[in-house]
Amino acid sequence: MAGPCTVENREQTLAIAEGVKNLGLTVFRGGLFKGRTSPYNFKGMGAEGFQIFMEIKKSLGLIIVSEVTASSQIPQMIEYVDILQIGSRNMQNYEFLREVARTGKPILLKRHFSANIEELLLAAEYILLEGNEQVMLCERGIKTFEPMTRNTFDINAIPLLKEITHLPIIADPSHGTGIRSIVNPVGKAALMAGADGLIVEVHNNPDQALCDGFQSITLEMLSELLTETKAICNLLGKKFN
Amino acid sequence: MAGPCTVENREQTLAIAEGVKNLGLTVFRGGLFKGRTSPYNFKGMGAEGFQIFMEIKKSLGLIIVSEVTASSQIPQMIEYVDILQIGSRNMQNYEFLREVARTGKPILLKRHFSANIEELLLAAEYILLEGNEQVMLCERGIKTFEPMTRNTFDINAIPLLKEITHLPIIADPSHGTGIRSIVNPVGKAALMAGADGLIVEVHNNPDQALCDGFQSITLEMLSELLTETKAICNLLGKKFN
Amino acid sequence: MAGPCTVENREQTLAIAEGVKNLGLTVFRGGLFKGRTSPYNFKGMGAEGFQIFMEIKKSLGLIIVSEVTASSQIPQMIEYVDILQIGSRNMQNYEFLREVARTGKPILLKRHFSANIEELLLAAEYILLEGNEQVMLCERGIKTFEPMTRNTFDINAIPLLKEITHLPIIADPSHGTGIRSIVNPVGKAALMAGADGLIVEVHNNPDQALCDGFQSITLEMLSELLTETKAICNLLGKKFN
Amino acid sequence: MAGPCTVENREQTLAIAEGVKNLGLTVFRGGLFKGRTSPYNFKGMGAEGFQIFMEIKKSLGLIIVSEVTASSQIPQMIEYVDILQIGSRNMQNYEFLREVARTGKPILLKRHFSANIEELLLAAEYILLEGNEQVMLCERGIKTFEPMTRNTFDINAIPLLKEITHLPIIADPSHGTGIRSIVNPVGKAALMAGADGLIVEVHNNPDQALCDGFQSITLEMLSELLTETKAICNLLGKKFN
Repeated sequence: MAGPCTVENREQTLAIAEGVKNLGLTVFRGGLFKGRTSPYNFKGMGAEGFQIFMEIKKSLGLIIVSEVTASSQIPQMIEYVDILQIGSRNMQNYEFLREVARTGKPILLKRHFSANIEELLLAAEYILLEGNEQVMLCERGIKTFEPMTRNTFDINAIPLLKEITHLPIIADPSHGTGIRSIVNPVGKAALMAGADGLIVEVHNNPDQALCDGFQSITLEMLSELLTETKAICNLLGKKFN
Repeated sequence: MAGPCTVENREQTLAIAEGVKNLGLTVFRGGLFKGRTSPYNFKGMGAEGFQIFMEIKKSLGLIIVSEVTASSQIPQMIEYVDILQIGSRNMQNYEFLREVARTGKPILLKRHFSANIEELLLAAEYILLEGNEQVMLCERGIKTFEPMTRNTFDINAIPLLKEITHLPIIADPSHGTGIRSIVNPVGKAALMAGADGLIVEVHNNPDQALCDGFQSITLEMLSELLTETKAICNLLGKKFN
Repeated sequence: MAGPCTVENREQTLAIAEGVKNLGLTVFRGGLFKGRTSPYNFKGMGAEGFQIFMEIKKSLGLIIVSEVTASSQIPQMIEYVDILQIGSRNMQNYEFLREVARTGKPILLKRHFSANIEELLLAAEYILLEGNEQVMLCERGIKTFEPMTRNTFDINAIPLLKEITHLPIIADPSHGTGIRSIVNPVGKAALMAGADGLIVEVHNNPDQALCDGFQSITLEMLSELLTETKAICNLLGKKFN
Repeated sequence: MAGPCTVENREQTLAIAEGVKNLGLTVFRGGLFKGRTSPYNFKGMGAEGFQIFMEIKKSLGLIIVSEVTASSQIPQMIEYVDILQIGSRNMQNYEFLREVARTGKPILLKRHFSANIEELLLAAEYILLEGNEQVMLCERGIKTFEPMTRNTFDINAIPLLKEITHLPIIADPSHGTGIRSIVNPVGKAALMAGADGLIVEVHNNPDQALCDGFQSITLEMLSELLTETKAICNLLGKKFN
């Protein structure tokens, strides 16, 4: 799964989506509503972006994953988005989890950066109890004392979760590191540790990105990551798709 | 501010409220909707509890503070509750913050246990930007490596916040420690460091409480804490009320 | 206990020692050997400083507490220093703890900034097992995710340690905060929570200090802290000395 | 590098060393002096173990790596041990670092579980400044809030260190996880992220081990890890030895 942190405008988004499609990927990520720590930061283009999603689905046939941040967005999300992402900050917003679960859509549940593994599993339980079993868990780094990286990617969590749960585990090395140059090695490490998939932020011009540019990789870096991912899948006897 | 973690039933709640009133306190806390980490835990009695709040307000004249956990609860909350509490887990649920802010009610904003001080202030900014200036910040402990306590009460945050912001600072030594026997000393320490008020969990029978009993103090302990609080206010030249 | 982080030269040290003495204090702290994170930082004046200690003891009658960082310093330390301080970074250097314990001198054992309470008590146990029972435990802040302060002073640890152990608890609000302006409120909070004493970094010219100037208070601030400390002791029914 | 946490007795040690040799490995690890958090735990067999090391070197031709915990052990260490390990708890014991550096022996410097990456590099700087350039850095997990694992292996540190320093990076997935069943996946992940080598605890009977048995893998598991390591080296175009 790859795409920009945030949908900024039609041109940027279509350019990245085409790049992603050309590399043979099937899932496109892009945020319309961003929960930003500061109210003064860019918060995404909002509902206008749904038309861009529709265009990407029609013209490129990509599957769309996008974050839902409020109950009021759910009706449109159901219509335009294929996989609903619950962001880290909402992992313990249990009433909201239930509501999103009841859409019946596949859910990508991101671990809160201060939630331990048990708390992640219990949050997933809220979704499962609504009868929605299409839950993917996403490890995206935890808050530690280390100042050099944005988060510490919890590699231990991957094999531990594989032991404890049957739910698929997706790794997000973009947020898990916060540093463009180490997204690829940490992504590959996560696959080697047992992750079922990766979600990465990619941008056609990362240094101009309105959000998270420092951790977005270029399409060239994504291409390299894909080649290596295929080699790892091969080594592990896993199927790549 | 004192009261049980959760409203369990009419008898328990009225007994504690009377105890709180008799000690000369004016604000009663009690949760109706609890965001519990596990979906299998007691989650509060829900909307039925509003009638009990009404009874407490009428017969005892207490001010009610209670946590709101979903948009759908807001209409009733406005009617029955005087101070709306935003729980730790919702501190970074920004769309929700805005919605609650627009009620115009005073808000008690609890710091997320993994939020740093700047993130707490930026969350408050979301509320202030809606034109609601009645925000109280609440320090309630942060997640650290220490396993002996539930959280580490961040005493440094109190004088730092007093330097940086004009908003009142409330300390919650119940969640900040998670251990009944040290609620009083940590509460007094917070006052000495400059906190404007305390919010504590109190129960008439803590060992039978359905939620957080291990950190709830008894009415006797509350009485002792009040006597000492008055002495501290006296020492600091502050008015107690 | 008060004094500079590091003994820089004779004039500075005597000036601060006189200031400390004039305020009625009895214990003077000063480092000769500093374990600095970077090998390029000022590491103290070393063994030359012992003569200055001797002068302070003779002329002012102050008790000296100073950190010992290597076995080779022990013989001179025994001669010139009254209380041997084990720094945070050596708290889990167990062979060294034993060696220092065998001097029979009183020991101020600082908690490592990543040690939990149990680990601190077990480190003290290494000293007690050598037959040296004059151990004071020192809480000086722990490492957390909060970037605004150098450490998070663990106020919870004070009443918890008072419950668990009979050893005296000293609080170090200078390292526990890393910010001059909040040393006093956090120091007072620690006393209110049950600490038996404070150790603070004081400097006659903090902004020119070669080490930790940003967290050293002035003699005027120390004077104010002492007045307030006496009032707190009075309130708690404790004797000040 | 593989071997038991602690040398328990001659039979156990020789059996494991033979197993390690038979798998084609060249470096044997084993502790004689253990810095244990509690003074009541098994602390290693001490200097008697040096004869066992001599036997292993003579009969099996293995290179020995072992931890030095006090200045007094240095003379014998130089004689019997090939690579001196500085344990986590001594990483910031700078006087000791210097002393060990002056032996001129290769040094395996373990990151303290609460040290950030910069602090690790500055500790290495203390050794390099003594003119000893044979320093290997070892990532072995950091302390976080996650209770399910002993430490959180900081996978991000591997590629970051590879960018910043030319020193070799060794990964210790045994301490980095604390759980036998995930040592292999995390070890492989570390190699994929760029680690130059692994050090793992192996035991012929882990459940009976006197130290760290829960994180020691069996010789069978080690054999499997080696096969996979060779495949990874092959994929990355690295030479295995």
